[in-house]
Amino acid sequence: MAVYTEVSDTDLETFVAQYAIGEVVSCKGIAEGVENSNYLLQTDQGNFILTLYEKRVAREDLPFFLGLMDHLASRDFPCPTPVHGRDGVALRDLCGRPAAITSFLQGMWPRRVKPTHCHALGAAAARLHLAAEGFALSRANSLGRAEWRQLFESTRDRTEEIHANLGAIIEEEFEFLETEWPSGLPHGIIHADLFPDNVFFRHDELSGIIDFYFACTGSFAYEIAICLNAWCFEPDNSFNLTKASSLIRGYETVRPLIPAEIAALPTLARGSAMRFLLTRLYDLLNHPEGAMVQPKDPMEYLGKLRFHQGVSGPEAYGLG
Amino acid sequence: MAVYTEVSDTDLETFVAQYAIGEVVSCKGIAEGVENSNYLLQTDQGNFILTLYEKRVAREDLPFFLGLMDHLASRDFPCPTPVHGRDGVALRDLCGRPAAITSFLQGMWPRRVKPTHCHALGAAAARLHLAAEGFALSRANSLGRAEWRQLFESTRDRTEEIHANLGAIIEEEFEFLETEWPSGLPHGIIHADLFPDNVFFRHDELSGIIDFYFACTGSFAYEIAICLNAWCFEPDNSFNLTKASSLIRGYETVRPLIPAEIAALPTLARGSAMRFLLTRLYDLLNHPEGAMVQPKDPMEYLGKLRFHQGVSGPEAYGLG
Repeated sequence: MAVYTEVSDTDLETFVAQYAIGEVVSCKGIAEGVENSNYLLQTDQGNFILTLYEKRVAREDLPFFLGLMDHLASRDFPCPTPVHGRDGVALRDLCGRPAAITSFLQGMWPRRVKPTHCHALGAAAARLHLAAEGFALSRANSLGRAEWRQLFESTRDRTEEIHANLGAIIEEEFEFLETEWPSGLPHGIIHADLFPDNVFFRHDELSGIIDFYFACTGSFAYEIAICLNAWCFEPDNSFNLTKASSLIRGYETVRPLIPAEIAALPTLARGSAMRFLLTRLYDLLNHPEGAMVQPKDPMEYLGKLRFHQGVSGPEAYGLG
Repeated sequence: MAVYTEVSDTDLETFVAQYAIGEVVSCKGIAEGVENSNYLLQTDQGNFILTLYEKRVAREDLPFFLGLMDHLASRDFPCPTPVHGRDGVALRDLCGRPAAITSFLQGMWPRRVKPTHCHALGAAAARLHLAAEGFALSRANSLGRAEWRQLFESTRDRTEEIHANLGAIIEEEFEFLETEWPSGLPHGIIHADLFPDNVFFRHDELSGIIDFYFACTGSFAYEIAICLNAWCFEPDNSFNLTKASSLIRGYETVRPLIPAEIAALPTLARGSAMRFLLTRLYDLLNHPEGAMVQPKDPMEYLGKLRFHQGVSGPEAYGLG
């Protein structure tokens, strides 16, 4: 949950007057997203989301994120559409922060993931990968393998506070990933943060995907690897093969995987587990006193990494 | 900001099916209220507020609070109206907590208070006092003078952590309040928590009052005293006489004060400052590590108390 910036009613009215979306009826900070301040903005014409971008989102990346949502929405992909002002501009400033209004997506994210959710998610991820084709901008993954090393360096002398021997486990995994990381896989723009709270459903049908603020260029199969970690483990961290195979079957209804992607999946799943282990470790160790957001548990991702380290091949995910 | 209880989509759908308000379209936790979990619930019939009552609200008080809102709304007072289920019941359980759905009020609370806001607030407070007449239930103030002493006893050995000599200042003020506290003033049901974030405006007109979870029996002038503290001090804690006299003039457009109320106002303002000083002190000293709500500063209310201690009479508030 997060609302970092308090917007005054007068500032808001001035801001909203730059758009042809009617008059403000109400504006409530919503407890979603951990990176930005999000408001549910109601005008006499409907509901919108107002986002103020806080410091973890780089201002220079915003044209990519907003442009991507525009591009995807124009291809009927269900995502928030940036609302452009009367001057044509979608990104402006409010309370000293970059800010944008987007359309409001119906639905709720699934608190209890079912295999049918995974199937729909897989299909939507593939649709996203195809729909993003032709988008003119690109963005490197700011949490890619080079950054994992940096994150680790900045936490390494405190990893033992979290888990005995954690530093050595990470070091060893880095060595594996450095030699085994696949290259040349089909790639394009990926969402890179397809966790359940970013995927909305209505009546068990996927109604939209939000939060494109980690989107970047990457291999499509890496996106699947992120989803395997985020959607296919139970609360006790046991792996649910039914959910995994539903996810991949769903993906393949839209875009079949090539053999190299299938073969790479165990390694990509290990890499994805490492990425979230490291960012959660960093966030936990650098958690400011009194912060409004509870840090997530890095150990959940160590457990997932351990699982992937133990698999014999892609058949562990219902493939191959 | 506060969302303490996470409601699953399936639990929510089952819950909402008990009401004739249509199907759930979306439900977002909102960053308002510090005592309860609040959600902006959208159905295909409109917007509602879903509240889950957390432990600081006593279950046995809920029929009073919800009944009061029903009573006020039936008298056209602008407040949330509890939605009754198909079975006629407004209060039921969700995720192990008492829960209710209320109507959605348009408007935003004023981040920068203007004298016109104070005038409208005063008039609305008086309307509330009159509209509550005839409501069958009553509730003693659970943060009245007897409880101030208890709050103080439970924090007294740590008051010096907050401010040198604070314990002695409070003791001395208690002595004053015990001898000077007025009795026999006009009384009835008061809101008892009319802070700006509980009062909504649209186009500078008051559109509604929310959060009746401190409402209780009390003297009407004590409500005004709470408002003087909550609305008429600037961010630097200087007292704004224009706002105070606007507030009182607004009140008197609906219900003129009697001389005894006017004479009592300085003492009631001191008592009200004491009440918020003590609860903030208690909350600060008992603030759980990692809590999502930032404790408010008790020293703000010490400053207000100091101001009221120094006034010569009700003319300091634009009266008398």
